[in-house]
Amino acid sequence: MKETSPRSSAELMQLVNVAAGREPADLVLKGGRVVNVHAGEICEVDVAITGNRIAGLGSYHGKENVQLKGQYVCPGFIDAHVHIESSMLSVPEFAAVVAAHGTTAVVADPHEIANVMGTEGIRYILRSSKYSPINVYLMLSSCVPASHLESAGAELRASDLKPFLSDPWVLGLAEVMNYPGVIRCEPEVMEKLELCQATVIDGHAPGLGGPELMAYVAAGVRSDHECTTWEEAAEKLAAGMYIMMREGSVARNMEDLLRLVKPETAHRFMFATDDKHVDDLIQEGQIDYMVKRAVATGMPPTLAVQLASTNAARYFELRSVGAVAPGRLATLTVLENFETCHATRVYKEGELVAAEGKCIKKVPAGEATTGLRSTINIQWLEPDDFAIRAPSPAPRARVITIVPDQLHTAHVVEEARVEKGCVCADPSRDICKLALLERHQASGRIGLGLVRGFGLQGGALASSVAHDAHNLTIVGTNDADMLAAAVRLVKIRGGLCVVRDGKVLADLPLPIGGLMSEAPASEVAEQLGRVRQAARQIGCQLKRPFMSLSFLSLSVIGSLKVTDHGLVDGAEFKLIDLFVD
Amino acid sequence: MKETSPRSSAELMQLVNVAAGREPADLVLKGGRVVNVHAGEICEVDVAITGNRIAGLGSYHGKENVQLKGQYVCPGFIDAHVHIESSMLSVPEFAAVVAAHGTTAVVADPHEIANVMGTEGIRYILRSSKYSPINVYLMLSSCVPASHLESAGAELRASDLKPFLSDPWVLGLAEVMNYPGVIRCEPEVMEKLELCQATVIDGHAPGLGGPELMAYVAAGVRSDHECTTWEEAAEKLAAGMYIMMREGSVARNMEDLLRLVKPETAHRFMFATDDKHVDDLIQEGQIDYMVKRAVATGMPPTLAVQLASTNAARYFELRSVGAVAPGRLATLTVLENFETCHATRVYKEGELVAAEGKCIKKVPAGEATTGLRSTINIQWLEPDDFAIRAPSPAPRARVITIVPDQLHTAHVVEEARVEKGCVCADPSRDICKLALLERHQASGRIGLGLVRGFGLQGGALASSVAHDAHNLTIVGTNDADMLAAAVRLVKIRGGLCVVRDGKVLADLPLPIGGLMSEAPASEVAEQLGRVRQAARQIGCQLKRPFMSLSFLSLSVIGSLKVTDHGLVDGAEFKLIDLFVD
Repeated sequence: MKETSPRSSAELMQLVNVAAGREPADLVLKGGRVVNVHAGEICEVDVAITGNRIAGLGSYHGKENVQLKGQYVCPGFIDAHVHIESSMLSVPEFAAVVAAHGTTAVVADPHEIANVMGTEGIRYILRSSKYSPINVYLMLSSCVPASHLESAGAELRASDLKPFLSDPWVLGLAEVMNYPGVIRCEPEVMEKLELCQATVIDGHAPGLGGPELMAYVAAGVRSDHECTTWEEAAEKLAAGMYIMMREGSVARNMEDLLRLVKPETAHRFMFATDDKHVDDLIQEGQIDYMVKRAVATGMPPTLAVQLASTNAARYFELRSVGAVAPGRLATLTVLENFETCHATRVYKEGELVAAEGKCIKKVPAGEATTGLRSTINIQWLEPDDFAIRAPSPAPRARVITIVPDQLHTAHVVEEARVEKGCVCADPSRDICKLALLERHQASGRIGLGLVRGFGLQGGALASSVAHDAHNLTIVGTNDADMLAAAVRLVKIRGGLCVVRDGKVLADLPLPIGGLMSEAPASEVAEQLGRVRQAARQIGCQLKRPFMSLSFLSLSVIGSLKVTDHGLVDGAEFKLIDLFVD
Repeated sequence: MKETSPRSSAELMQLVNVAAGREPADLVLKGGRVVNVHAGEICEVDVAITGNRIAGLGSYHGKENVQLKGQYVCPGFIDAHVHIESSMLSVPEFAAVVAAHGTTAVVADPHEIANVMGTEGIRYILRSSKYSPINVYLMLSSCVPASHLESAGAELRASDLKPFLSDPWVLGLAEVMNYPGVIRCEPEVMEKLELCQATVIDGHAPGLGGPELMAYVAAGVRSDHECTTWEEAAEKLAAGMYIMMREGSVARNMEDLLRLVKPETAHRFMFATDDKHVDDLIQEGQIDYMVKRAVATGMPPTLAVQLASTNAARYFELRSVGAVAPGRLATLTVLENFETCHATRVYKEGELVAAEGKCIKKVPAGEATTGLRSTINIQWLEPDDFAIRAPSPAPRARVITIVPDQLHTAHVVEEARVEKGCVCADPSRDICKLALLERHQASGRIGLGLVRGFGLQGGALASSVAHDAHNLTIVGTNDADMLAAAVRLVKIRGGLCVVRDGKVLADLPLPIGGLMSEAPASEVAEQLGRVRQAARQIGCQLKRPFMSLSFLSLSVIGSLKVTDHGLVDGAEFKLIDLFVD
């Protein structure tokens, strides 16, 4: 629920009776240190809980009493901006992992699954969030498709989003990535901004400043999570934006931005992960990790907790959470200390959902993917479909060059190796072939190109996770293995795979939209480890080969990318020929 | 409007075009210093305004350009809790006075007029606030009548308040003064709290702490403006309440509370006046005065402005105001400097409403009181009605004793002077007679007593302003003058007056509910000066005699008070006999 869930006067009386000490609490957390974000201090008081709410702070005794022995009672952590799909987990599995790390709510942008399945994808996330150990709030994806140079599985117009605004779990409009469209007043994006004026509108505008930033903010965009330097964040803060500090698997901006957080401005900052993979979530954590890092750099714990919970609650107008105070929902994270930030107990609305790093609330499984169609729809392929005819015996071709651990790419021109009239991979120079297969409408469209940086000595890698349209992306040293990899992805209804000599070395099935697994989180992490290991087997030296693969088609970032229409010049934002005259 | 008033995409485009510099602004405030509450700093930038909104901060040129020469541009000030009736001005006159002092919005509790006229009083305030130079938001009076020991003109139940919740100018439930009722779970007050759960609920709980405070907060009460010590405020802050610091005509709590405001907790504090008389508003100011005082004690101007505007805007969920930022309404107060806090220009939604300490927006008058009934309804009086029969020749009687400039009273017992079998005043011992006449239903009920502290040597004072039921309160040295004073109040349809030897020395007519004048503010201030002067003429030494008079019936505060039912023991909260056995 967005707002204070209205309480009946009977519920109010129950709270008042327990608070006043006339009736025993259902549960009292005794002997803990409460992180009081309102007073900016840590207080040694009991927390009395009745039903799903906190009745009082003070000296209480309940039907159940839990001794906390000086552990820290915090309001439950909130991830202010996350794409759940990036974890590759189903929503219930994602929820179980992050609940164990002290997260009690996330504000998710279903941008990836919406690019594949449109409103059906949004409805799937809403539906599969029910009965979860955390609250999953949604922002409505504002930029589907993200680019008109690539074929996505859906297009979301303002009229498609409108019905969702009445859903109690929908909080507003997700990151408006099309900031050039806002600044240019493109009718389609203005219509969405108009529709969502009374809600929360998130931004995404890396590097934007000056009058263009003013235009973006004037249009109603209220936050940004793309700041990479404190100077950029300072300008956005002064323009009235809330700043979400991001610490994902790859983009890690918190340390640069922390110096901007002063006690008087702290209430304008939040924590977010944006994109974080299953293994990083399990091993490193989510918001708990950010609290730990912030405190380690010298931020007072009360402020760190404010950023981790209170500020997001206020920004998204979730009145009943974000503080340990009478009348609030008993949605709490108990931390061992601020050095480890280990969550020893996590309560959601009075119910213990995680303890000692494990989620204990049974998550319903199985039903989650009911109603999902198979989303890998491609034409029957022949090896010949991957062939690149050479225009001359020794043509010069553009080669996309990977920058390790970054989303952008470099653009180099090399003489192409030609065999039997076709351009082929040249492992000796670390040049692979690259294919991008449209997979939504079975159009048969394939974008072909060359890529450097994977270091493959044989075989092929393939992924149905490919930002933002999530077509099939295949990198390989030969057409036969590229075909075999594509076929494998069709068979497993999407996912990641590694093929050599026609044999599948490893795969990670992601049948939910070709993006998310149905398996338990630990199994997904293991499978991910196996496909990465298999990639290393065929020569790949990248630490995160599938991440690099998945961003080869994100044409808005980087010098040279590929879509199902062919190569895209990232600077000019237009299609460009593979070969240089 | 509570929320961001939804803007059409055409309006958004206009804002974006001006912000981006493609179209000229309607108005640019140039060369000012913008108090940036988000960044916690003061920035020298132009403010570009188009229509009713701020388009951008930066370097702009408009159709109209105003040179501010280093003056400070602040978000318009907000009084978080005020009873407009206490100014004795009609709403348009009140608005004109406070607009000239840089206030652009007030959150008013129409508690006084609601005690006289019920929902008709609330509707009057709503109606007469239209087209005002300031925004007048309303909180719904929660405690009408305030006491069952006195007869008010109306009773407001939850079902009476409910229809107002859909009014865009109504923000929630006003100060829940009946905190004992909340703690005791009285159904009538719980019903109101239940009704208003999704809105803002203001508190009023002087001295409340411990488990009872927890109970009060758990019931959904979110703020308090009754803290008189910083320790009391600290406990309420830690319990999750917002703290409104009050600086009215009499109650002046800001200085004690300022030490509690730290940069990290500052966002939980607001400024309010509660009750401030016309002369104090004109001479001293309102929120501007609090900003001046706070800065003088060392608070950084950015924080002071945050308390004066931003925090109230956030607390009341008024998204479009409270900051000088792109997309916000151009509702701004320009201060000469922070030493004087003199408002040189005040804009409401892009329109200049006050300049150089004068309101320049023409306020519609005349219509304001249409529909008001005469509210002074008393039975035809005879001099004999004021007689107090003495039970014995020299009875001992309870005497209410005024504490100058305070709402509470002391309770002393004195031998009463008796003439012709009746107790009479004794100016030599500073004992006056006191009468409290029920004036709503013409019931003929009169409460009689004795009072010390007015120092009258002859004549009588009378007032139809008498908290909270606003019956007629008359203090005098003889029955004939008391009768004459009562008759005068009937003739002027309520107000204040001073009578000696049957002659009216001065009066201040307050025909709107017996509480508010229809005259211009300067005239009301002048009339108030005249009645005070006349009170001095008949011997009164009190600085604010009519204020002391108006609180003689407020039975919830003080040791001994009077209502139309007779004397009330404030400690026991029950009726008590005038005479001691």
